[in-house]
Amino acid sequence: MNLARVDHPFIIAGKTYSSRLLVGTGKYKDMEETRQAIEASGAEIVTVAVRRTNIGQNKDEENLLDVISPDRYTILPNTAGCYDAETAIRTCRLARELLGGRNLVKLEILADQKTLFPNVVETLKAAKVLVDEGFEVMVYTSDDPIIARELEAIGCIAVMPLAGLIGTGLGICNPYNLRIILEEAKVPVLVDAGVGTASDATIAMEMGCAAVLMNSAIADAQQPVLMAQAMRHAIEAGRLAYLAGRMPKKLYASASSPLDGIIA
Amino acid sequence: MNLARVDHPFIIAGKTYSSRLLVGTGKYKDMEETRQAIEASGAEIVTVAVRRTNIGQNKDEENLLDVISPDRYTILPNTAGCYDAETAIRTCRLARELLGGRNLVKLEILADQKTLFPNVVETLKAAKVLVDEGFEVMVYTSDDPIIARELEAIGCIAVMPLAGLIGTGLGICNPYNLRIILEEAKVPVLVDAGVGTASDATIAMEMGCAAVLMNSAIADAQQPVLMAQAMRHAIEAGRLAYLAGRMPKKLYASASSPLDGIIA
Amino acid sequence: MNLARVDHPFIIAGKTYSSRLLVGTGKYKDMEETRQAIEASGAEIVTVAVRRTNIGQNKDEENLLDVISPDRYTILPNTAGCYDAETAIRTCRLARELLGGRNLVKLEILADQKTLFPNVVETLKAAKVLVDEGFEVMVYTSDDPIIARELEAIGCIAVMPLAGLIGTGLGICNPYNLRIILEEAKVPVLVDAGVGTASDATIAMEMGCAAVLMNSAIADAQQPVLMAQAMRHAIEAGRLAYLAGRMPKKLYASASSPLDGIIA
Amino acid sequence: MNLARVDHPFIIAGKTYSSRLLVGTGKYKDMEETRQAIEASGAEIVTVAVRRTNIGQNKDEENLLDVISPDRYTILPNTAGCYDAETAIRTCRLARELLGGRNLVKLEILADQKTLFPNVVETLKAAKVLVDEGFEVMVYTSDDPIIARELEAIGCIAVMPLAGLIGTGLGICNPYNLRIILEEAKVPVLVDAGVGTASDATIAMEMGCAAVLMNSAIADAQQPVLMAQAMRHAIEAGRLAYLAGRMPKKLYASASSPLDGIIA
Repeated sequence: MNLARVDHPFIIAGKTYSSRLLVGTGKYKDMEETRQAIEASGAEIVTVAVRRTNIGQNKDEENLLDVISPDRYTILPNTAGCYDAETAIRTCRLARELLGGRNLVKLEILADQKTLFPNVVETLKAAKVLVDEGFEVMVYTSDDPIIARELEAIGCIAVMPLAGLIGTGLGICNPYNLRIILEEAKVPVLVDAGVGTASDATIAMEMGCAAVLMNSAIADAQQPVLMAQAMRHAIEAGRLAYLAGRMPKKLYASASSPLDGIIA
Repeated sequence: MNLARVDHPFIIAGKTYSSRLLVGTGKYKDMEETRQAIEASGAEIVTVAVRRTNIGQNKDEENLLDVISPDRYTILPNTAGCYDAETAIRTCRLARELLGGRNLVKLEILADQKTLFPNVVETLKAAKVLVDEGFEVMVYTSDDPIIARELEAIGCIAVMPLAGLIGTGLGICNPYNLRIILEEAKVPVLVDAGVGTASDATIAMEMGCAAVLMNSAIADAQQPVLMAQAMRHAIEAGRLAYLAGRMPKKLYASASSPLDGIIA
Repeated sequence: MNLARVDHPFIIAGKTYSSRLLVGTGKYKDMEETRQAIEASGAEIVTVAVRRTNIGQNKDEENLLDVISPDRYTILPNTAGCYDAETAIRTCRLARELLGGRNLVKLEILADQKTLFPNVVETLKAAKVLVDEGFEVMVYTSDDPIIARELEAIGCIAVMPLAGLIGTGLGICNPYNLRIILEEAKVPVLVDAGVGTASDATIAMEMGCAAVLMNSAIADAQQPVLMAQAMRHAIEAGRLAYLAGRMPKKLYASASSPLDGIIA
Repeated sequence: MNLARVDHPFIIAGKTYSSRLLVGTGKYKDMEETRQAIEASGAEIVTVAVRRTNIGQNKDEENLLDVISPDRYTILPNTAGCYDAETAIRTCRLARELLGGRNLVKLEILADQKTLFPNVVETLKAAKVLVDEGFEVMVYTSDDPIIARELEAIGCIAVMPLAGLIGTGLGICNPYNLRIILEEAKVPVLVDAGVGTASDATIAMEMGCAAVLMNSAIADAQQPVLMAQAMRHAIEAGRLAYLAGRMPKKLYASASSPLDGIIA
């Protein structure tokens, strides 16, 4: 388990990315801060909430794509703000239209506005329809390994379990579930939501995640641009540590066997 | 508590360093791996166990300083392998002689070879003598905040509490003690020992440590050079996150108050 | 949040129980050990896997009910070993027949034999049918608060989220999800599965669970009968501590505010 | 490591106790609440701060021993409020005089009033003198295993490391240090300070502590008498679970090996 690993490139929908950090565009003070933070993060994939952000729907308003150019970034439209399969599906179709027929989407269906917990039943329904319609679906979900497995079986191209609920900053609330998902998945597993600070992202990558998606951790920091830089390094650190293969944990250096997890 | 912070430069004995990662030289396969790992880590201060490493004592043997040049790196001689004040003091004097009269030393006195736990009573004794003799003492100690405070009062220029025992890779075993030390200290606080992987280093920096010193985490990784790179990023990530000021933790995003630590 | 609480009796299907510990009957060495452990636990509700245990299906074999008498214990038939809604529903109907028309059942549908993770989609399906058929359904589920809420809305009389997966002994893997479930539920919330030792049960009760159901933690201990006694006290301790209202956590006693969850 | 254990009686200064819960007398609303809580706790050893409590020094004031009778309880005088060896030694001598020549004392020397952290250097000094003067010294200390070992070598009859600082309610802040102390000690190891709720006490006992001493966790609860009952059960639960030998932790039940501590 501690062996050094072979590096696999991070490929989404046939394109290889060198950055394993994906970022959102919500919650920033203004477009300029959004632009600066995203640039500082080094992200190459930027996710956009189609129902909340103008990417061309409203001709007379400021268009995010003027700041976050599709020439430079892969725009990943998402269904944030959708609470059922039908609305999410419609939103994906709209996004495809607005983005010149591109099929890549991030499916995200929440259960309520209080907890922002994903609704896995509606997510499964929508995923089936979207995959059938030719979308390349990256899917946000809970850390339920069975749901993750079903979403992969349906044909989603990446599974994105939460570390913690959206906007909580709690880090990886259940590393056991995440580890099971990572053991089983054949498609890339990205942690999406719950990251609160740099070390959370590092831990996700050390566990073997292909990438991490975040928004609040950067946008809600006291200084978002600095935190974006922090996250860039955090992701790199975690990936390298995963590849390097960490030393075993011991109670003391001369102990004859690694710690067995009994006490901690 | 979550406010963005002002960056203070990392200054040791009057010299400003841009890297906040200090590394040891033990446990590597050979001199070449030592050299490569240290270079990859970006460290500017390299600590050397005077009783275990030839830095000129033995004229006919390979000299570490031929590989880790004092022109490029600040050599920080340490007293690893000393189990009482007297031996540690003698070792520091020898180091000063071998290194052309330089006063900078890392004091480290362990209690036994089984646990490698620091002996704080002997450490206090030796620190007094060494400070009186004009040494600039960076001191390894337990995470006891009272001992840390006394070592600072004696005149040590940096206090270096353990995160965990040497060679354990357990990370920060008691963040509460470390936080008290950080709240009280006026000199730089470096975490020394116990770091096992990149995220451990990031967490130490996020808590406000001035720097981190490590050896096993790099040398005992499956691929030490890769882990050295990981650590370089991890330290950077943690420092930037500390400066950026993280978002608050909440049970769910719409909760009216941050988490109060009751459940976790 | 720290206020002392009013004690509510633990009522299931109209009957009040004084013990808040429910136990299973699997994995014991023999019937006699089963009997002794259950007696030592003080449990008043005993759950039985209808597909694995003879409670009258096979006339010529040893009948568990001769040892665990329905006169003394409430027998809670469960659907362990069922991997889809249909089988689970059939199993409940069989149980009702074998137990003289009693409607109380524990619904449990797993997704696979490797992880024993619950299949929440099949569970939702079966719960609807069973409630419609007049069963009083206590339902085992993941710690997904949305699924828990739906199961309650369907009409289940108790929601039983896992602490950890069956047979893992990991304790409460995600206290955040459990806390959200507890905040929202109007029916009794029981932790079911994942408890490994006494303190796990105590913590579940301190968080406000109505009761705890376990099997492996007792049956797989080195001395099951002793562990059953431990659990009896653990449940009592946790319930009393919950009612008593614990002291706040602080970094040190003279700190002006409780810990905010930043460091731990 | 998981084997069932042999039960050793809890013996202090030649007397065998059936309760492994020791309690303090500070912080209660009044004498009556003190009496009720102590009775509910089942404690047989009650510790009294000689410098803060009247046990006969002031003839005209209410005497605690009228409520907590030395005929029923073992009174354990302690040196709370002492910040150096000399004062602590004087306090022990006074206690011996007031209690009819009894030699049993709890030595406790703190470093400051802000953190209430123990001063281990002064504690070592006082312990030597007190043991030489024939006292039977139960000694409060940090969780430094080397200091614990020295205190045992000096002749203390019980070593009482903190779980967390006095009045913090943080539970066992560093289980690794405590485990090392437990592995090495030949005298009884009691956790003293830091327990905040019932599960903290249970965990300390599960780790193999001989007993637990607490005060704030009971006195600062919303309902002290209820919490005292909780603690009585919690100690019992933890001791029984320790003796029973818990099941191993696994990632999932069918995993071939126990968890190795890598992820948690």
